[in-house]
Amino acid sequence: MNFNKVSFRVRYSETDQMGVVYHGRYAEYLEVGRVEWLRSLGISYKKLEDDGIFLPVIHLQIQYKKSAKYDDLLTVETYLKDKPLVRINFDYKIYNENRELLVLASTTLVFMDKEKNKPVKCPPMILEKLG
Amino acid sequence: MNFNKVSFRVRYSETDQMGVVYHGRYAEYLEVGRVEWLRSLGISYKKLEDDGIFLPVIHLQIQYKKSAKYDDLLTVETYLKDKPLVRINFDYKIYNENRELLVLASTTLVFMDKEKNKPVKCPPMILEKLG
Amino acid sequence: MNFNKVSFRVRYSETDQMGVVYHGRYAEYLEVGRVEWLRSLGISYKKLEDDGIFLPVIHLQIQYKKSAKYDDLLTVETYLKDKPLVRINFDYKIYNENRELLVLASTTLVFMDKEKNKPVKCPPMILEKLG
Amino acid sequence: MNFNKVSFRVRYSETDQMGVVYHGRYAEYLEVGRVEWLRSLGISYKKLEDDGIFLPVIHLQIQYKKSAKYDDLLTVETYLKDKPLVRINFDYKIYNENRELLVLASTTLVFMDKEKNKPVKCPPMILEKLG
Repeated sequence: MNFNKVSFRVRYSETDQMGVVYHGRYAEYLEVGRVEWLRSLGISYKKLEDDGIFLPVIHLQIQYKKSAKYDDLLTVETYLKDKPLVRINFDYKIYNENRELLVLASTTLVFMDKEKNKPVKCPPMILEKLG
Repeated sequence: MNFNKVSFRVRYSETDQMGVVYHGRYAEYLEVGRVEWLRSLGISYKKLEDDGIFLPVIHLQIQYKKSAKYDDLLTVETYLKDKPLVRINFDYKIYNENRELLVLASTTLVFMDKEKNKPVKCPPMILEKLG
Repeated sequence: MNFNKVSFRVRYSETDQMGVVYHGRYAEYLEVGRVEWLRSLGISYKKLEDDGIFLPVIHLQIQYKKSAKYDDLLTVETYLKDKPLVRINFDYKIYNENRELLVLASTTLVFMDKEKNKPVKCPPMILEKLG
Repeated sequence: MNFNKVSFRVRYSETDQMGVVYHGRYAEYLEVGRVEWLRSLGISYKKLEDDGIFLPVIHLQIQYKKSAKYDDLLTVETYLKDKPLVRINFDYKIYNENRELLVLASTTLVFMDKEKNKPVKCPPMILEKLG
């Protein structure tokens, strides 16, 4: 419930001339991780936005241990850190298919009411799913 | 009036592991070209959108002659092809600082009314600037 | 043999402020399409590069019919157009999950010998797989 | 000497459907910042790589205070934190043209010998420029 994983291949466009994944691209991988975590709870982030709740990132931290390479089959593990209030905190680990740890990361996002453009508490619907 | 040029450096993030600019990135360069063409006419594309006019691309064609490399100082030349009606057509040439031709490209965009989600004629304000 | 399809979801990072996939991002989708076509033949593009053959894109054409949106499950259909010689030509169709046609595209790539930095004929290994 | 600033406009492709710059894109802005800092010292990062020294990012931290928007004229301020040894540490501030602080960030990079694929000390050439 507090954990999910998702796998996908590195695209050519995600590499840079060092011959590895561009370091800024991992932000996209983390996003895929938390969106699939939500989906595993039965929640669509798309629907959340349609319902007027946005989740902008307010803090991002990434520690790079080893490079991901083109065509690597990566696995992003997403961990919910604690009960979400106005903010929601995730930790992440990214592995390649040899189970080498590539990246340790964390993000903080904030629930925002689109109409009022103000932070709001985590929607009850999400808290319920978390049990 | 029907022509403008703009220069900028290739960013590291725009390269791929072939050691050159990723081919898909040129779409962004062309966009910088036409936005700066508009600005040279005294028109802000940002303001156009704020006023309810969008300009989605409906056709893109790029011919790659020579690769752009990291840190190259590129020049995008943007040419308005003909008088804009509902559609607006541009041709582009991209050069490096040795004046080698890297790319020939063309795009077609369509003026869209955001509210009605329907194509509309080129705003008179733009036609006036074109004389 | 001359055709393959692959599906994946649109990532948030691939959208722009029009609320749809940024038009330049489709180049990445086409690349996923042709790489998976190669994989379906038992050929790894990664291995091809490791063996000294590069496949740069020399021509790209995209016709945008309808927008892809965030979280859409897209299907890229890749068609080999004709027998590859020094060049290899693909056509593509991209659909959303309602089977609406979003994009028609074509690309031309050229087989390049990395060492000599010169165009070469399509490797026999690929021609054999094509039968 | 320990500080530099550089300005550029937000590109359309850098926005997402929240109507602001995609949070992962700031990694590219920070890179522009430190490359221009190097250039202000008379050092080309491109040449550094050609000479066999790579500078991969091993740690990235970004705090998002306020969103950057399309066409905003951003200024990235880059601060060298301390004397570079095997690692080099930067702090960054990103402002919009109203001088609102958008982002606080820091990165750690490591000097790598390309041939040996091993960390090395900061090249004397850089230390000399720093005085």
